[in-house]
Amino acid sequence: MNSFGRIFRVSIFGESHGPAVGITIDGCPAGIALTIDDFTADLERRKAGAAGTTPRKEDDIPEILSGVFNGYTTGAPITIIFRNNNTRSADYDALKATPRPGHADFVLHEKFKGYNDYRGGGHSSGRLTVCLVAAGVVAKKVIAPSIVNAKLVEAGGNTDIEAAIQKAVDEQDSIGGIVSVSATGLPLGLGEPFFDSAESLISHMIFAVPAIKGIEFGAGFAGTKMKGSEHNDAFIDKNGTTRTNHAGGINGGITNGNELHFRIAVKPTSSTPKEQQTWNKETQSVETFTVKGRHDLCIALRVPVVAEAATAIALADMLLLKA
Amino acid sequence: MNSFGRIFRVSIFGESHGPAVGITIDGCPAGIALTIDDFTADLERRKAGAAGTTPRKEDDIPEILSGVFNGYTTGAPITIIFRNNNTRSADYDALKATPRPGHADFVLHEKFKGYNDYRGGGHSSGRLTVCLVAAGVVAKKVIAPSIVNAKLVEAGGNTDIEAAIQKAVDEQDSIGGIVSVSATGLPLGLGEPFFDSAESLISHMIFAVPAIKGIEFGAGFAGTKMKGSEHNDAFIDKNGTTRTNHAGGINGGITNGNELHFRIAVKPTSSTPKEQQTWNKETQSVETFTVKGRHDLCIALRVPVVAEAATAIALADMLLLKA
Amino acid sequence: MNSFGRIFRVSIFGESHGPAVGITIDGCPAGIALTIDDFTADLERRKAGAAGTTPRKEDDIPEILSGVFNGYTTGAPITIIFRNNNTRSADYDALKATPRPGHADFVLHEKFKGYNDYRGGGHSSGRLTVCLVAAGVVAKKVIAPSIVNAKLVEAGGNTDIEAAIQKAVDEQDSIGGIVSVSATGLPLGLGEPFFDSAESLISHMIFAVPAIKGIEFGAGFAGTKMKGSEHNDAFIDKNGTTRTNHAGGINGGITNGNELHFRIAVKPTSSTPKEQQTWNKETQSVETFTVKGRHDLCIALRVPVVAEAATAIALADMLLLKA
Amino acid sequence: MNSFGRIFRVSIFGESHGPAVGITIDGCPAGIALTIDDFTADLERRKAGAAGTTPRKEDDIPEILSGVFNGYTTGAPITIIFRNNNTRSADYDALKATPRPGHADFVLHEKFKGYNDYRGGGHSSGRLTVCLVAAGVVAKKVIAPSIVNAKLVEAGGNTDIEAAIQKAVDEQDSIGGIVSVSATGLPLGLGEPFFDSAESLISHMIFAVPAIKGIEFGAGFAGTKMKGSEHNDAFIDKNGTTRTNHAGGINGGITNGNELHFRIAVKPTSSTPKEQQTWNKETQSVETFTVKGRHDLCIALRVPVVAEAATAIALADMLLLKA
Repeated sequence: MNSFGRIFRVSIFGESHGPAVGITIDGCPAGIALTIDDFTADLERRKAGAAGTTPRKEDDIPEILSGVFNGYTTGAPITIIFRNNNTRSADYDALKATPRPGHADFVLHEKFKGYNDYRGGGHSSGRLTVCLVAAGVVAKKVIAPSIVNAKLVEAGGNTDIEAAIQKAVDEQDSIGGIVSVSATGLPLGLGEPFFDSAESLISHMIFAVPAIKGIEFGAGFAGTKMKGSEHNDAFIDKNGTTRTNHAGGINGGITNGNELHFRIAVKPTSSTPKEQQTWNKETQSVETFTVKGRHDLCIALRVPVVAEAATAIALADMLLLKA
Repeated sequence: MNSFGRIFRVSIFGESHGPAVGITIDGCPAGIALTIDDFTADLERRKAGAAGTTPRKEDDIPEILSGVFNGYTTGAPITIIFRNNNTRSADYDALKATPRPGHADFVLHEKFKGYNDYRGGGHSSGRLTVCLVAAGVVAKKVIAPSIVNAKLVEAGGNTDIEAAIQKAVDEQDSIGGIVSVSATGLPLGLGEPFFDSAESLISHMIFAVPAIKGIEFGAGFAGTKMKGSEHNDAFIDKNGTTRTNHAGGINGGITNGNELHFRIAVKPTSSTPKEQQTWNKETQSVETFTVKGRHDLCIALRVPVVAEAATAIALADMLLLKA
Repeated sequence: MNSFGRIFRVSIFGESHGPAVGITIDGCPAGIALTIDDFTADLERRKAGAAGTTPRKEDDIPEILSGVFNGYTTGAPITIIFRNNNTRSADYDALKATPRPGHADFVLHEKFKGYNDYRGGGHSSGRLTVCLVAAGVVAKKVIAPSIVNAKLVEAGGNTDIEAAIQKAVDEQDSIGGIVSVSATGLPLGLGEPFFDSAESLISHMIFAVPAIKGIEFGAGFAGTKMKGSEHNDAFIDKNGTTRTNHAGGINGGITNGNELHFRIAVKPTSSTPKEQQTWNKETQSVETFTVKGRHDLCIALRVPVVAEAATAIALADMLLLKA
Repeated sequence: MNSFGRIFRVSIFGESHGPAVGITIDGCPAGIALTIDDFTADLERRKAGAAGTTPRKEDDIPEILSGVFNGYTTGAPITIIFRNNNTRSADYDALKATPRPGHADFVLHEKFKGYNDYRGGGHSSGRLTVCLVAAGVVAKKVIAPSIVNAKLVEAGGNTDIEAAIQKAVDEQDSIGGIVSVSATGLPLGLGEPFFDSAESLISHMIFAVPAIKGIEFGAGFAGTKMKGSEHNDAFIDKNGTTRTNHAGGINGGITNGNELHFRIAVKPTSSTPKEQQTWNKETQSVETFTVKGRHDLCIALRVPVVAEAATAIALADMLLLKA
């Protein structure tokens, strides 16, 4: 299902090299001020251009098809589309025989019996994260005054991220990274016991972002090495403020009013410039090949704004459900 | 929402010290052989008894209220309940003033305005994982011949788990651990791009298990330190078999037919025997207290069978959706 | 899916001749006073006993397994079961060869490949409406001070219902009827344009009640013979009070604050004492047969309390979603 | 929620006088041939132009934004939009003070706190049924070789429909009608007991069509006047063929393989040319007014193709769920 959410519900559509990509946001409250300008900052943050990012550049101008009237959300579904202008589909024809390692080419072809739009990853392309970012802009307004903040804290295993990128450029091999996400100002009480725990809903959305392979809340994996008496966060006032925050702001699946905090693992960009091996469907043998096309050396550079969006979307849904 | 799934849909109910806990499985295909005996092995694996586990013991005899007739599932909802016999509620009255650090006591009281059943954690109790295990037994039959296997691979930061438990007993402080989960025999094509990626659906279910604070698929966090040319798993035959499995069997959110593999972080049991500090609502000050009641020193010991169940439930839903 | 609702979510389970039938209500707000006694009146209204109703009598004592603590709802799922005590399964063995006309026997056997519990209609039995009534009791508390009221207004085409029943008893043939349902005190604004219109959600629930074959809101079918100038309900004050109510309290799929009103068609009980014809699977021919077992001559007599419950459930969900 | 369906899932968006209206179809199987030409016939059937229909004419050219590649569905979401070209918004400014009787103007304004796009009914406009028709075209392909057929069988209480329209034109007052819908070739087994009965799902979708106020399956309301021995449909062969079809092809909420049949009540068009009374918000009194704008005298003329679409959508979802 290409949708997420019970109240604040997002539905994504489009292919990398089709006419447009887009997202519909259903369940957004009426009366939220929203203009095209509101999208600029986050769309710019997601854009390529820096060292380590793809040379493919889109204008990324959102077109709001519905749900906004006289500068305010109306309560009806908000559909935002982005036209695809800068497509070079010929880059991809050669790939039909050689599914790219680490990519979804192979599984998409099998799952959809060859009918999938394979150009540029089709519906699975990172291109569609522009839609997540757009929905995130709306979600951030819904959760205000709570604020979500994400930043890249490690690239290629190095906390000096500029150095890491330079090394990747020098070596012409892609790298991954770790993004740290936090949210402040959240009310206590978001999430439910068991299936709709805050961790369940947030991780569900975070793993909707391409290239994410891990998530840990609060102390996470490091916390497994702590003792209970160290890990437990002592309550120190009637509001539930805790002295430490090893739980990442979530107890028993429910936000406790402290800072929400988690970290996510971004794998190295699958489209490395390095030579690789893969199965060639035509020759029926393993062959060496090199990915063509325009790609990011470190997709993790562009993940923070997408991770913020994904987090805000999950939180908006939880907030409206609780309201 | 205390439910999960689109086709194979589980709904959990009950409180630790109420009359019973239970689970309803809706959408299970008709014609699967199912008897009470099928539950024994997994329920035993979940039970307390070993060093490091709680002295509270329940008979854990499942009562099938519906959905099974003449030894086979009927296609109607399967409801399984477990009566609560061995409750000592008095243990918990003292806790009303002092919310236990690391537990949901505080957030539950606030979220449900004091109406929650606070005895033994109420609806949020680990007691309810017996229901997940029961649903897991059914789910495992649905995904057969695919098999899910989980094991504790690290406790308190130590891969010698017996030694780790003995140390926790000696120190009288709780510990956490890491559980490794794998599934073999899965078909290619489970999961969808974006919101219903295999990672999204599995992590959603895994974080429904109490005490889980992290998950990583394949190389996960370690993978962020690899180069793309190292991390990518080369396809080596027409079935999509890969030479390595850093992706954990998932490309672009869709299973690729290789072994599914992920690891989960289990935090130290919140109910450590050690003295702790917390806010006392009556005295309006931070006070030292000690948790009473019967608890596990290392809840991670009992997590594997629950994690298997959670995984099987998520996979059963994906499988039936694809079928 | 044996569930209904987005916020106030009910899930039904059980078979007519199994151990128990039950319902889980998820999403009920915490803090609503609820005791066993609250169920008595509506359960009595549903019970058999009057002329024209089945001689099968159950005690119909609800057992609350979860979600209620110290006399109040806790916010956790409420599961209520009814044990089946008075089953005479032998009545049904003969029917395996001869599917009863008007019943689901035939389709259930085919749909579930013969694994369905065929005794007494199994999971499709009218017995399970006791669960709907129980959930309705809770739903009515949620929508208070709004009140739902249903009554049988016509039986066998006759508005003198006692006479109609007597005639059916004399003729020993079952009859149907029309039930009128209204709800007062509802706020304006329930329902959404298009797919979640108030009519969509209410009819969805109403057709979950066995034997219902029609529904009309306001003037309904008679309204198709009116002119627009007659049918339109003039607004006469700032609150949206209308002079007439041909719309049944719903404009554009959304409640307008006037009385909600609709009528439902209940078909004649399928289990008539009269001789009938049906296909005999063993002899492979059409044969005459007579339904055995204990049945209602006019199931419509017992529908009003079930229709009230179904309506209250749909309204509770809409109300909580709007809140 | 502006979505319907569990597997074949449609989501509608857009406003009558906004940039575009559209629909996303998620869950459509890959490999179905689909071109723009496939939409022509049904879109033409929905169009205005005949006596009794609105003079507003749109080109109604569908633009497929996603989900179709090389003439086949890809398995990814299909989004189809229709640009709004022929809008005369000035017609509606005068209505802000005087909510039109029978319309959703009043409730929309209250529900959305005045932020709704009121022009031409906004998101609630009949204009959006063009989207339903488009989704219906796809749904009809999914359910093939089953066929859905709807026709207007009565207008203004008259089965001579041309005469009825002429009378409405002469009297300059709008009229309603009854549409008969049937589906042939459906498999046995669609629908579930209780909440997802075939009647529940079909009526849910049918009441998403504006102006519908009633639905009856098979003998429906007339069936309430029959005796059980008359109403029951005798099975006459091993496939479940029945001698009569008073049940409309549904037993116990599940299709029985016979023709599906139901009738729907369409109210008279709310926008009658006749003078009417309504509350004037500015003068705070009941006043006489006349609806301006371009409207249908008998919207029922355009309902059949929309009802076919709604039915096909519901059936497609049930079919894919069963598959």
